[in-house]
Amino acid sequence: MRYLSGIQPSGILHLGNYFGAIRQHIRSQEDHDAYYFIADYHALTTLKEPEKLRGYVRDAVLDYLALGLDPRKAVIFRQSDVPEVTELAWILSTLTPMGLLERCTSYKDKIAKGIDADHGLFAYPVLMAADILLYDAQRVPVGKDQKQHLEVTRDIAQRFNHMYGETLVVPEAEIDERTALVPGIDGQKMSKSYGNTIEMFATEKQLKKTCGKIVTDSRSVEEPKEPEGNNVFELYKLFASETELQDMAARFRAGGYGYGEAKMALHAKILEYFGTARARREELAKDPGAVEAILRDGASRARAVAQRTLERVRRAVGLR
Amino acid sequence: MRYLSGIQPSGILHLGNYFGAIRQHIRSQEDHDAYYFIADYHALTTLKEPEKLRGYVRDAVLDYLALGLDPRKAVIFRQSDVPEVTELAWILSTLTPMGLLERCTSYKDKIAKGIDADHGLFAYPVLMAADILLYDAQRVPVGKDQKQHLEVTRDIAQRFNHMYGETLVVPEAEIDERTALVPGIDGQKMSKSYGNTIEMFATEKQLKKTCGKIVTDSRSVEEPKEPEGNNVFELYKLFASETELQDMAARFRAGGYGYGEAKMALHAKILEYFGTARARREELAKDPGAVEAILRDGASRARAVAQRTLERVRRAVGLR
Repeated sequence: MRYLSGIQPSGILHLGNYFGAIRQHIRSQEDHDAYYFIADYHALTTLKEPEKLRGYVRDAVLDYLALGLDPRKAVIFRQSDVPEVTELAWILSTLTPMGLLERCTSYKDKIAKGIDADHGLFAYPVLMAADILLYDAQRVPVGKDQKQHLEVTRDIAQRFNHMYGETLVVPEAEIDERTALVPGIDGQKMSKSYGNTIEMFATEKQLKKTCGKIVTDSRSVEEPKEPEGNNVFELYKLFASETELQDMAARFRAGGYGYGEAKMALHAKILEYFGTARARREELAKDPGAVEAILRDGASRARAVAQRTLERVRRAVGLR
Repeated sequence: MRYLSGIQPSGILHLGNYFGAIRQHIRSQEDHDAYYFIADYHALTTLKEPEKLRGYVRDAVLDYLALGLDPRKAVIFRQSDVPEVTELAWILSTLTPMGLLERCTSYKDKIAKGIDADHGLFAYPVLMAADILLYDAQRVPVGKDQKQHLEVTRDIAQRFNHMYGETLVVPEAEIDERTALVPGIDGQKMSKSYGNTIEMFATEKQLKKTCGKIVTDSRSVEEPKEPEGNNVFELYKLFASETELQDMAARFRAGGYGYGEAKMALHAKILEYFGTARARREELAKDPGAVEAILRDGASRARAVAQRTLERVRRAVGLR
């Protein structure tokens, strides 16, 4: 079964990204014909700084490869290395009702906030449809905020097939059910926009500093503390084994165990958990040629599929 | 100076198309570095019949070649043979304000008429901008109805250059000033939508029949007639020399010269005027391989220019 996942090149990753989505996405390479693309065309809708975009794309590739995406198992490529997607997007545009796009809440929200939208933002769901349909993807993981866009994709595909005969595969959404809720250092949902993130690829020192900033109550070391609901403990849950968790919980309850010590335990766990990934990322960063080769190979594999689909589409609509 | 002209594959040509625009466009090959493309991507916005689209594209190429477009002097190609245009269109989309497109009257008119518009229709001016900017075109002929779209193109190019540094050539409109006003067989402006056209590539018999249907008053052969303002005479003006015109005018005024005879004179003139073109078109239609070779050659020349521009654009925005 073909699986497709888009990667937003949006800067430095944090634990919320990883446990909220990336971990599950990468796992799909084990039992799917999996495709992953760095969505640089999409990024242009919000990012108009060339140097930053280049850096974000580079980082996104390094992140995914470091976190276990395996180019021998899956195809990883840069969206703009397969420009066929923009051709499909145009063709799909010609049969996408304006109303369908006008109803998309992500666009409506921007307008409601008084953001002066560019056309790219409005047309985004059509390019997303092209991303998916170009690869005949059958399963696409979607977070809550992308559910409507996948519906748009399905609508467009069905419309196309109805108009021109069966040509496109209508994809199914794979809703991330088991998604862990990751608290930020202030206890709110971890999110870059809240400035409460913990970044797993930060330096040891930075990471230590961030762990130190996790918000706790002001009870002294001596006082007994309830571990449940406490931010350090909640974050520790992401990494620790059952035994380790019970151990920390017991220490908290017994008293004489301070938040500082717990934060150091968490820090150590993060470094341990991401040890391999951190080392691998450092290695990869030193070898841009090898990374580029992986992307080139991915692009050529993805492009072969894309060209077959596009050829079908071109014949169906009469461009050939 | 680079000149670019888009050809709408919209079916059978008539005298209004020719004297209203095509003749002038083709002349530009003499003193410009001229590019002509058959706008098949655009056609999809209104045409959802694959067989019809293929036929229209074929006809458009035959028409232009027959009417004198010379592949040794100019570049003629199919828009979809240079799919780079859709990539540029996407990139331009990300910096095209929605307001700019919402103000386009061609779209507003459709909405006002209650036509349920597709996104392609709305996004049309962005693809048109890409068409022009991809080829660094300096001059673009525009009819009245396309003037606003060229303004959009200029706006987008300036915006791009302002944001990312000088990258795109800002084109100038070449307003068709000398455009002949061609009356249809009913005296209204000749237009397919009025059903009053004379088609220069119709068979001799069909053409004769159409000339026969030119609306005149009911004066008898014997009566003297005022030639000015009479449909047959007005159409005759497009073809006849000064002497021939004066001759026909004198006959009308003298009486004893009927509309039927004048229509036959007009018919003969049309056949004479388009004689070479009609013969050439027939020849070309018999040799689809040669026509395809012309298009292939045109595409490869156009694509070389397109790829250079796109490479510049990709670097400017950070996709490379």
